[in-house]
Amino acid sequence: MDFLKYPQPLAELISSLSRLPGIGPKTAGRLAFYLLQQPQVSEDLAKAIVVANRDIRKCSICSNFTDQDPCAICQNMQRDLTALCVVEHPRDVVSLEKTGEFKGIYHVLHGVLSPMDGIGPEQLTINQLLRRLEGIKEVVMAMNPTVEGEATALYLARLLKPMGIKVSRIAHGLPVGGDLEYADEITIARALEGRRDL
Amino acid sequence: MDFLKYPQPLAELISSLSRLPGIGPKTAGRLAFYLLQQPQVSEDLAKAIVVANRDIRKCSICSNFTDQDPCAICQNMQRDLTALCVVEHPRDVVSLEKTGEFKGIYHVLHGVLSPMDGIGPEQLTINQLLRRLEGIKEVVMAMNPTVEGEATALYLARLLKPMGIKVSRIAHGLPVGGDLEYADEITIARALEGRRDL
Repeated sequence: MDFLKYPQPLAELISSLSRLPGIGPKTAGRLAFYLLQQPQVSEDLAKAIVVANRDIRKCSICSNFTDQDPCAICQNMQRDLTALCVVEHPRDVVSLEKTGEFKGIYHVLHGVLSPMDGIGPEQLTINQLLRRLEGIKEVVMAMNPTVEGEATALYLARLLKPMGIKVSRIAHGLPVGGDLEYADEITIARALEGRRDL
Repeated sequence: MDFLKYPQPLAELISSLSRLPGIGPKTAGRLAFYLLQQPQVSEDLAKAIVVANRDIRKCSICSNFTDQDPCAICQNMQRDLTALCVVEHPRDVVSLEKTGEFKGIYHVLHGVLSPMDGIGPEQLTINQLLRRLEGIKEVVMAMNPTVEGEATALYLARLLKPMGIKVSRIAHGLPVGGDLEYADEITIARALEGRRDL
């Protein structure tokens, strides 16, 4: 690799940076030189990584990332404890919270079922989910509209429905501001399928 | 900012990452979650940043980044000590070294003259350059072909020529594999200007 021509500590830094997603060797090189030129930025970054790794854990109830256990949402007595929204990743909780539309509680799976990658129900937080269904009336599936996301939602629906819990899924259709002309066929088909009376 | 909705240590991590060049808040969020999910990657990265910051310094002769002083190139007695190539950044040394074409020594300016940004000769390593001209027969300017790069090359040429040193500049023209049709006019003008007899 090119960066082996750099002094050892610099080569190590470039190599570490290029293990991040979406960062190739060229970008990693650029970032590494920037970090060397800005000691304050790089000191702050190293500290932030260490602190986040030390202080951020998974909430013992919902598995969301948190610095307090239970997390702020699970501790909040104002939330609707009868509605539970299941998401793939912690960042999805933030996306949903920004809308202010959902007043219930969350459960973070930390992935989706993907037998090809060796990810079965045991690798996700499905057992924790099944243990916290007391009092839950509706479970909203908010997985991403991918094959694995869909399969995970259907798998969970099949587990939850026999317990008398209402299972719903967020709508798939045209994004607001989107254009029929540029939408793919599957999205349009889903939008038609999910049409509502006006 | 959106990331203020995250737990404090995570918000700090996203904020630190988004201070890197070319990393916006969305990418910073994605990287931060990745770092939390991959403790080994993030531990290695934090360590690499700390080690690089501690061990990488500027060579006291050429100002290139190095973990030994003088740097490997300045220590190398096989190099041609009569030819000196001036570059803007340490990464440019690596680009030039990869070609294997230049056998001389280097000098890294750590920037270019840019009065608008308050960067004058004192902010660069120009004084160090002037102090190491003994025995140098040719200085090759390898600044980037930008207005500031050109101005810096001309400024240095005006200092060096009266000392009887030959000053040259790397050629500007069509990149190999490039296409006349897609080249900008200034590049084509420079390519014509620099034409050679066949």
